[in-house]
Amino acid sequence: MKECKIIIMGFGAVGQGIARAIALKKEMISKDYGVELKVVAAADSSSSAISGDGLDENLLADIKNENGKLSAYPDYGTIMSGPDVLDAVEYDLLMEATPTNIETAEPALSLTLKAFEQGKDVVTSNKGHLALKFGEVTKAAQDNNVEFKYEASVGGAMPIINFTKETLASCGINSIIGILNGTTNYILSRMTSEGSSYDITLKESQELGIAETDPTQDVEGIDAACKTVILANSLLGIDATYSDVEVDGISNITSQAIELAKKDGYLIKLIAEVSPNQLKVSPRLVKQGSSYDVNGTLNMATIKTDLAGEVTVMGLGAGSLETASAMLTDVISILKSKY
Amino acid sequence: MKECKIIIMGFGAVGQGIARAIALKKEMISKDYGVELKVVAAADSSSSAISGDGLDENLLADIKNENGKLSAYPDYGTIMSGPDVLDAVEYDLLMEATPTNIETAEPALSLTLKAFEQGKDVVTSNKGHLALKFGEVTKAAQDNNVEFKYEASVGGAMPIINFTKETLASCGINSIIGILNGTTNYILSRMTSEGSSYDITLKESQELGIAETDPTQDVEGIDAACKTVILANSLLGIDATYSDVEVDGISNITSQAIELAKKDGYLIKLIAEVSPNQLKVSPRLVKQGSSYDVNGTLNMATIKTDLAGEVTVMGLGAGSLETASAMLTDVISILKSKY
Repeated sequence: MKECKIIIMGFGAVGQGIARAIALKKEMISKDYGVELKVVAAADSSSSAISGDGLDENLLADIKNENGKLSAYPDYGTIMSGPDVLDAVEYDLLMEATPTNIETAEPALSLTLKAFEQGKDVVTSNKGHLALKFGEVTKAAQDNNVEFKYEASVGGAMPIINFTKETLASCGINSIIGILNGTTNYILSRMTSEGSSYDITLKESQELGIAETDPTQDVEGIDAACKTVILANSLLGIDATYSDVEVDGISNITSQAIELAKKDGYLIKLIAEVSPNQLKVSPRLVKQGSSYDVNGTLNMATIKTDLAGEVTVMGLGAGSLETASAMLTDVISILKSKY
Repeated sequence: MKECKIIIMGFGAVGQGIARAIALKKEMISKDYGVELKVVAAADSSSSAISGDGLDENLLADIKNENGKLSAYPDYGTIMSGPDVLDAVEYDLLMEATPTNIETAEPALSLTLKAFEQGKDVVTSNKGHLALKFGEVTKAAQDNNVEFKYEASVGGAMPIINFTKETLASCGINSIIGILNGTTNYILSRMTSEGSSYDITLKESQELGIAETDPTQDVEGIDAACKTVILANSLLGIDATYSDVEVDGISNITSQAIELAKKDGYLIKLIAEVSPNQLKVSPRLVKQGSSYDVNGTLNMATIKTDLAGEVTVMGLGAGSLETASAMLTDVISILKSKY
């Protein structure tokens, strides 16, 4: 049977989700697509486990969970990390799940370009390199004649990129309007249901692990703006970068404003708009009961098309196994077209 | 440039939508996929227009609209109809859009099997042959090594089949629950907003052209039951046929029942459930503001998966150009894999 040797770079929640998802689905994939997935390396920020014979995916996740470092993996743990890992073992496909950096795009940018130069396919959940240098990165993939897929970078487990490209292939896309950040949607939903203040709700969300210790990326709209740029480039063919997005976050939203909106049948949501005239992330009023009325950490997007009218999709915007499932669907699509 | 010669069988609203959609999109398709679409025949129930050199798609739709019969097409109009058309001209792909017949599955069944035997790919919007003989028809396609695609048979312009198969490829599907009939959703939405009776609302819907003169297929849940069977077979691998679905329609729903539900924060919707234990179409209570709270002729479906959690999709369940767009996406998918 054909083999697809995988390196996982980045081994936080998403990287561990990838390992567990592969463990769960490798049998189905070999049966349905005739290709055996084999994880030959996994790396966190300061260590890795590497073996050309393949690693145990669940053990990788368990070790990382228990020890914090992949160097603790029996026999195959090393202190190697970063781009060197891509030279240390033969592989076919890089699954890149390092944290997004919206200033430097690193380490995603270097890892991705190196894999392309080595002639390897890349599946990523990272937003940084896509939001800052979409054109450069996708051109590098084309120049090296490799596949580059990034469904998980927008919407987590909510399909939007492949969804629009594949299942709406006959349609022209006029615009996409949606809720692309789960953390802010959770905070706003909770402020609406509880009548609580922004500060208290943020604190509660941090305690629940929904908002991060430094919540800036989410609450200031930076994360949603990255996704806006990725959709603009990939689905509307707009040559834009992060700085082209007009961004306003939710940190100034008061419980009074939410209460006033509520009385008139409206909600306040952090809405991303992707259209040829406008790339914008801002709090907006949406009607209660409309398709924008989704609660908690859900993401949604309405795609306005020329032939099919409006199509809306909704799903979990984050989650370890959930985000990994979008990356694994990208892998399957590569297996179908190339293996 | 490569050519894909198309026969359109059935030239009602959907057939005419196909012709107009091809006219709108053939330039994009030849540019993006390197294949020229050419309609070499179109047939209604008693006549056709046939030319190996290609027909004018917009003229086909105009003629049908003005004359009621394709035999009026200049120079190439004939009184030929039915399966003979498939012998009258060389072609590559059948786009089948005849009316659904849930007793005999004809003429879709004969046309589809004949095209398969001739080694031709088929894209259909018909539900009859799929709901009655899914296994037989899909096996015939496999045996003849041809493509058979049917996205438009469920949900019109709401992608659900390709959506689940392609963009959720890594996931196991546990169940699908949704609103799969636009006419009944329109009637129930209107009864809810107006407080009007079933009989009056049905009559208004008929006057608006939303419900048919004989509304049985829609209001008794037959149409939704056909779609339930198609989803069961194609997405959950359940070997079921139409008679396996438990069906209850909306004709007994009173405005009083809707009013009572409303007071408690609920709506009455015609819900289709597709799960290994249950194939069922019936009126059910759903929460106001939930993802099942969609109005008018919209369709929606929530797909419960093992890895990605719940994913919901929503779109227009009917419409001439809208349904045709789903069929054209199926055509593009065939062009990508075979041409």
